[in-house]
Amino acid sequence: MSNYTIGVDMGGTNLRVAAVDELGETIERITLGTQLSLGRDRVIDDMCSSIQQLVQKHAGAKLLGIGIGVPGIIDKQTGSVRAAANLPGWAGFPVRAEIERRLQTQVILENDSRVATLGEKWLGVGRSVNDMAMLTLGTGVGGGLVLGGKIWYGVNGMGGEFGHFTVEPEGHPCGCGSRGCLEQYASATAVVRMAREAIAEGAAGLSRMTELSSKGIYELAMQRDPGALQIFRRMGRALGIVLADMVNGLDLPMYVIGGGAVSAWDAFAPTMFEELKARSVVYATTSSDSAKKAIITQATLGSDAGLLGAARLPMM
Amino acid sequence: MSNYTIGVDMGGTNLRVAAVDELGETIERITLGTQLSLGRDRVIDDMCSSIQQLVQKHAGAKLLGIGIGVPGIIDKQTGSVRAAANLPGWAGFPVRAEIERRLQTQVILENDSRVATLGEKWLGVGRSVNDMAMLTLGTGVGGGLVLGGKIWYGVNGMGGEFGHFTVEPEGHPCGCGSRGCLEQYASATAVVRMAREAIAEGAAGLSRMTELSSKGIYELAMQRDPGALQIFRRMGRALGIVLADMVNGLDLPMYVIGGGAVSAWDAFAPTMFEELKARSVVYATTSSDSAKKAIITQATLGSDAGLLGAARLPMM
Repeated sequence: MSNYTIGVDMGGTNLRVAAVDELGETIERITLGTQLSLGRDRVIDDMCSSIQQLVQKHAGAKLLGIGIGVPGIIDKQTGSVRAAANLPGWAGFPVRAEIERRLQTQVILENDSRVATLGEKWLGVGRSVNDMAMLTLGTGVGGGLVLGGKIWYGVNGMGGEFGHFTVEPEGHPCGCGSRGCLEQYASATAVVRMAREAIAEGAAGLSRMTELSSKGIYELAMQRDPGALQIFRRMGRALGIVLADMVNGLDLPMYVIGGGAVSAWDAFAPTMFEELKARSVVYATTSSDSAKKAIITQATLGSDAGLLGAARLPMM
Repeated sequence: MSNYTIGVDMGGTNLRVAAVDELGETIERITLGTQLSLGRDRVIDDMCSSIQQLVQKHAGAKLLGIGIGVPGIIDKQTGSVRAAANLPGWAGFPVRAEIERRLQTQVILENDSRVATLGEKWLGVGRSVNDMAMLTLGTGVGGGLVLGGKIWYGVNGMGGEFGHFTVEPEGHPCGCGSRGCLEQYASATAVVRMAREAIAEGAAGLSRMTELSSKGIYELAMQRDPGALQIFRRMGRALGIVLADMVNGLDLPMYVIGGGAVSAWDAFAPTMFEELKARSVVYATTSSDSAKKAIITQATLGSDAGLLGAARLPMM
């Protein structure tokens, strides 16, 4: 067997661990539920025992390293989670040191959206380019930037936080402390919030829903319900504004949109492209058959992007 | 004499040409008025004869190349000016080919703000960093991005157009085709336009001005005139919003603000920093004595940034 790495994708729902070889072939994977309600220690126990299980099973091959993607802001220096809205009790905890203590080996800890971007660049839609950015539409809006084939970290390890670009200066308050961030209009959470706002304003179709979910609201939009359609137009407009900033500022060959809420592409993409064309003269004037026209496209690895990107980290 | 390059800064008012050595020492410079009203050919004549004059005078040394900064969007492939609001009759003209034909040698043509960024990185405030961005507040708002010590061009040579980041989605129409771009709130032109708007709304102090200029409006603000102060608060707010986007997206060690309108720093900077802190959690939470705190600062080379940056182009 060839050399391999272990990648870990610690999601809010699933904890996934995989052994991946240098060509990107998954040798073996373990999927568990993330037992967040049982506490931080339990989740780290599960993670470490899954890693050890894979290491023992593949003892004949050379383990090159371990990469872990975590849904939070990582302090690269201390290896602790600086802030993680979806991991109660994790903020400030020295995760990397604790995992390294248990495994008796070094690990690389990274923000999940940065890791997913690396996964899409390595084995997904970004394979053919060296420079790309990604937006991950989930509970929040994550982001990642790859320049010259590598994750662009920035001085504080925070480069790529496109989800906190301002869309509406006086818009909805954001968890980051600002107002009107992209995250407040283009995350699954935002879709549900905008639906609640629309219901308060009397949107009939949405009011009849028994349970509000971004998936249900999308299905309603696909039935051409005006209130639901309007929500995805707002989402598309916010994405178009931020994509225009990104095209004007970075002029990359590719921008990838992933995460669960990208499944509503049909509902938000028309407005997104309209807004992008109106706001970026470069995008608007580059002819569509030019090799230099920015490609705005969906991610192709789905939830594997984070797992494969994490496995890629020790190879960089 | 050591090896040298020739840099050209073609401004709307002055045409400046300099011979610069590899250490950044200016060996000799020629300053002429830019005779835009006498037509394109005359300006190119003046430029080429100044270059030839310097080449003949320094025939004993080795000329490494010629770099030219032009206030417009440059098509890097064809070497023509794609759009230039301040150079009537230049759009679409193959400037590079025409200059090369006259001089019988290759030249490098580049957007003036990109070139000024390179100048500040080489010999100005950015000397100590490898990565930086710059905003040039002039007739418009230009921008430039330097990553790893080099200008970041992007696939279409358009990377660094931070002046066209959206600040107000439904704001003032911009020459680029979008609305509410930074340029509409932070350029010298915008300062005068906002003053006109304020006068129409009855601003007393501004109404008494005999001639509206950004310099005069700044002086009025320094006398604590409420209408004039409000204009620079809008300017600072717009700059703060875009700087927050840049910090969140790129996490660079340094952001430089230059151009003529940066002289109003005292009037716009307080609001700019306030807005930046409110909108970028990274900026707000990095302690001010940390080496990783983003430095937001004024350019130091003044109008020489473009000239020296142009001379730097052939050395890259």
